[in-house]
Amino acid sequence: MLSKQQIKIIRGLQLKKNRMQSGLFICEGAKIVHELLHSSLKINKIYALKEWIIKNEGFLGDKNIVQEISSNELLQISELSTPNEVLAMVHIPEQKLQSTSKLGLALDSIRDPGNLGTIIRIADWYGLSQLICSEDCADAYNAKVVQASMGSLFRIQIHYLPLIPYLKNLKTPIYGAALNNSENLHTFKGKKSGTLIIGNESNGLSDEVLAACDVRLHIPRFGKAESLNAAIATGIFLDTMIKW
Amino acid sequence: MLSKQQIKIIRGLQLKKNRMQSGLFICEGAKIVHELLHSSLKINKIYALKEWIIKNEGFLGDKNIVQEISSNELLQISELSTPNEVLAMVHIPEQKLQSTSKLGLALDSIRDPGNLGTIIRIADWYGLSQLICSEDCADAYNAKVVQASMGSLFRIQIHYLPLIPYLKNLKTPIYGAALNNSENLHTFKGKKSGTLIIGNESNGLSDEVLAACDVRLHIPRFGKAESLNAAIATGIFLDTMIKW
Repeated sequence: MLSKQQIKIIRGLQLKKNRMQSGLFICEGAKIVHELLHSSLKINKIYALKEWIIKNEGFLGDKNIVQEISSNELLQISELSTPNEVLAMVHIPEQKLQSTSKLGLALDSIRDPGNLGTIIRIADWYGLSQLICSEDCADAYNAKVVQASMGSLFRIQIHYLPLIPYLKNLKTPIYGAALNNSENLHTFKGKKSGTLIIGNESNGLSDEVLAACDVRLHIPRFGKAESLNAAIATGIFLDTMIKW
Repeated sequence: MLSKQQIKIIRGLQLKKNRMQSGLFICEGAKIVHELLHSSLKINKIYALKEWIIKNEGFLGDKNIVQEISSNELLQISELSTPNEVLAMVHIPEQKLQSTSKLGLALDSIRDPGNLGTIIRIADWYGLSQLICSEDCADAYNAKVVQASMGSLFRIQIHYLPLIPYLKNLKTPIYGAALNNSENLHTFKGKKSGTLIIGNESNGLSDEVLAACDVRLHIPRFGKAESLNAAIATGIFLDTMIKW
């Protein structure tokens, strides 16, 4: 049985300010909680239907973190239109910024949670260990980001920080995704140790960030679409840069 | 002033069966209607706020197709959470299947409207003139597809047809996006005149379609994500294949 207080706390985590204050976020659905149980993240509490508990007993280390709830109670705490068996309250992991010699990725003002989640999934596919986000990017612990990242959020460190000072400290090349006055991604040959920066969905990279780039690169266009979606561009860039 | 009958017809077009019966679909928002006015599509009616009409008078050939409405009326007919100045009722264009020697793209059971819209935008970026969809793909004239395609829907022909007979008639190679038992996209060198097939978001290509492929190809993975989103994969495949 969920208390009113519990329901209030769980629903409150839909807001970023409450996530910041408590250091907790919500993961929903059997698939994503399955990934969570196999990750290094610390779970605070799991609220689940009886069916889910029976199926997953073997995976649960500390059984005290699980509370059985009814489907009506799940409906009250879920943010999904069709709630799915289980909801977990998870500790936002501590992030340690690494100076890596591998391919890096930074986002300048990516606002759409679906795009951010998809980009986290792409970064994980290409083996990146961290993602740098300007402070005005969507919050990675927003429910839509958690869903779209498909579990990759549990494997990638996400750092929110002012981009310009970060970029100025980098010792490897900075490649900015741009449309104008830029090199052709299909013919350019860069260094695998560089950092790619992807800009805002409508406005691209800010002038300040553009000025900090060593090379501006564009994906050549063969048809008439005005632009590519930011997550699509990220996938195409990383798939090319990993071959450098 | 909108009549009750008009409101009923417009809102009815949110359903596929009504779009099929009437041959009409809805485009919403200033940006997409701007693209529409510069396309070859036949507009049935434009419902717009006074501000929009004043700004766009120069672009309107036949002024009789425009009806001024209030923002309250727009709210009643809009499917957007924040309605935006204008809504157009547009004739679904007649589609003529072309046998092209260029790069082709076919979708096997892409169900998510956002993915389909994004894929149409990618196809347009790479200069494809048509897109083949299995009959169980999302409907291209669904509002979410129209929004996500960002105007590219007006430039690309969309054909819904049974995939297997279509594929069997192709004279150029068929490349299937697959995870298992497949060639590495980074090292394989194919023919630019081939057709790429992208499969369902959860299950990939059906066995029947896989059997019809000449070559199965995968995007190599360097990290731990289980898969890439279908639209991301489409972007990476087309960006590679256009260089063949």
